[in-house]
Amino acid sequence: MRILVTGAAGYIGSALVRALPRGEVVATDQSACEDGEALVGNLAYPPFARSLITPEVGTVFHLASLVSGGAEQNFELGTKVNLDATRDLLEACRLAGHRPKFVFASSIAVYGGKLPDPVTDETPASPRLSYGAQKLVCEILIADYTRRGYIDGCALRLPTVMVRPGSANTAVSGWASAIIREPLAGRDYVCPVRAETRMACISLRRVVDSFRHAAELPLKETVLLSGISVSAGEMWNAVKGRAKGKVTFAPDDRLQAIMDSVPKATVSEKAVELGFRASGSIEEIASDYEETALAHHG
Amino acid sequence: MRILVTGAAGYIGSALVRALPRGEVVATDQSACEDGEALVGNLAYPPFARSLITPEVGTVFHLASLVSGGAEQNFELGTKVNLDATRDLLEACRLAGHRPKFVFASSIAVYGGKLPDPVTDETPASPRLSYGAQKLVCEILIADYTRRGYIDGCALRLPTVMVRPGSANTAVSGWASAIIREPLAGRDYVCPVRAETRMACISLRRVVDSFRHAAELPLKETVLLSGISVSAGEMWNAVKGRAKGKVTFAPDDRLQAIMDSVPKATVSEKAVELGFRASGSIEEIASDYEETALAHHG
Repeated sequence: MRILVTGAAGYIGSALVRALPRGEVVATDQSACEDGEALVGNLAYPPFARSLITPEVGTVFHLASLVSGGAEQNFELGTKVNLDATRDLLEACRLAGHRPKFVFASSIAVYGGKLPDPVTDETPASPRLSYGAQKLVCEILIADYTRRGYIDGCALRLPTVMVRPGSANTAVSGWASAIIREPLAGRDYVCPVRAETRMACISLRRVVDSFRHAAELPLKETVLLSGISVSAGEMWNAVKGRAKGKVTFAPDDRLQAIMDSVPKATVSEKAVELGFRASGSIEEIASDYEETALAHHG
Repeated sequence: MRILVTGAAGYIGSALVRALPRGEVVATDQSACEDGEALVGNLAYPPFARSLITPEVGTVFHLASLVSGGAEQNFELGTKVNLDATRDLLEACRLAGHRPKFVFASSIAVYGGKLPDPVTDETPASPRLSYGAQKLVCEILIADYTRRGYIDGCALRLPTVMVRPGSANTAVSGWASAIIREPLAGRDYVCPVRAETRMACISLRRVVDSFRHAAELPLKETVLLSGISVSAGEMWNAVKGRAKGKVTFAPDDRLQAIMDSVPKATVSEKAVELGFRASGSIEEIASDYEETALAHHG
């Protein structure tokens, strides 16, 4: 059986592809992947999305997304990519009839408004961004398709995954990677939120492990992954000693307001029971990045 | 401004249309309404759905649905009617650009599984029927369209609305109306659930009042309506004295299992604070039916 990975050229997708058995992966994205072997196509074009689900595909890792800031700015494109493309994949699975495993990259953006600290398994979802609304809708559809036996589906609510290499994407949490990446690369960075702004964080390594773990479990529900609470100031402190660039803080009011209504930490007992592992500390997250991501992205 | 009512030939829709100012209503359904003035068309046909949202439409009551049993049996039709048609209406509102009031008929079918008794404002939605999943997805999209300023939307989670006249539709709760309607009409009725099976109930009159109330409030969220807890046996007892038909109980295992995982009662403090009113008793619900519905449907 083959393993389909959507969003395979992305930050998480490319790391997941590297961690999967090479000969079995069908990687797809809108641009070429680093190993050059991806199916290049637009998942928001329904015939392309549908063509990906062949009888040989036993597992789908659906990671492709227009992330938070992008989906907020371009509602139509966000709806196409985050909602319609997922529906096309689900329908293709239903019509293929072989009930593939379907692991969905959801997000803690499903939470919003006045939130408890930490957010837990009991916290109700209440999105305040279209991205979060679209992710939540997909979770609900995946649960229904699973209940009906059309797929064997589950979803992982991802905390902020760090440290994203290269240039920023449109995520509203982009600063959380840049504040580590930029000074380590010798570039100064102006952080657009206050130093005390906290986020629920997890390393790329733990997220990749979590996706692989989810595919192996008889899991038929949505699981919140635990994200440790790290402030912008603590992120900067974790690399300050060896960084050649400097960080200054110049909060942007709009972004700060968004950040003030996202989870500051997530703690999931269910994730622990199921064997998912959280990151231990921001130092661990930073050194994971320096060890592994830098080896691939320079 | 005009008031659009979808599902206007239905049980709730036709009562709502009767309660609205006659000259202002645009009624639509897939078959003719009783007053013969409806726009007849298929809401699952996107161009028809979109054509309904004109600049003159200031309020939309979106009631059209393929109900619980039907959507469970015919997944594709349920998806078209319950999910896609709502999205087409929402998109038409967004593109029209005049931000109409949008009142959506959601359902307590968004709750499922192991439920507290009563279900309250704090109970998380967790649908166990495609109908409930589709309603929940629409609630989330309506909240996002409202947050973005595309509509002025809200949703009411309706308990079982009683007493439906005429023949049964495909709702899994259809027995709750039949057990009163049939013996009053002089027909014997075999009830497909146990006499002690309880449901959260509300009268048609209270639901119509609730829709009109929701349209007048500056309400931008989903509200659970309170439904009193009534057993099948209590429903029968409420009309036994004056009924010419008889009721016997012959539980169907599949239906009984569904009924055992739906809310037995719903209590919403938020609904009370906002001025929504629940039904007082099953006797009130039954006599509402005898007074008003019988006058219209015989």
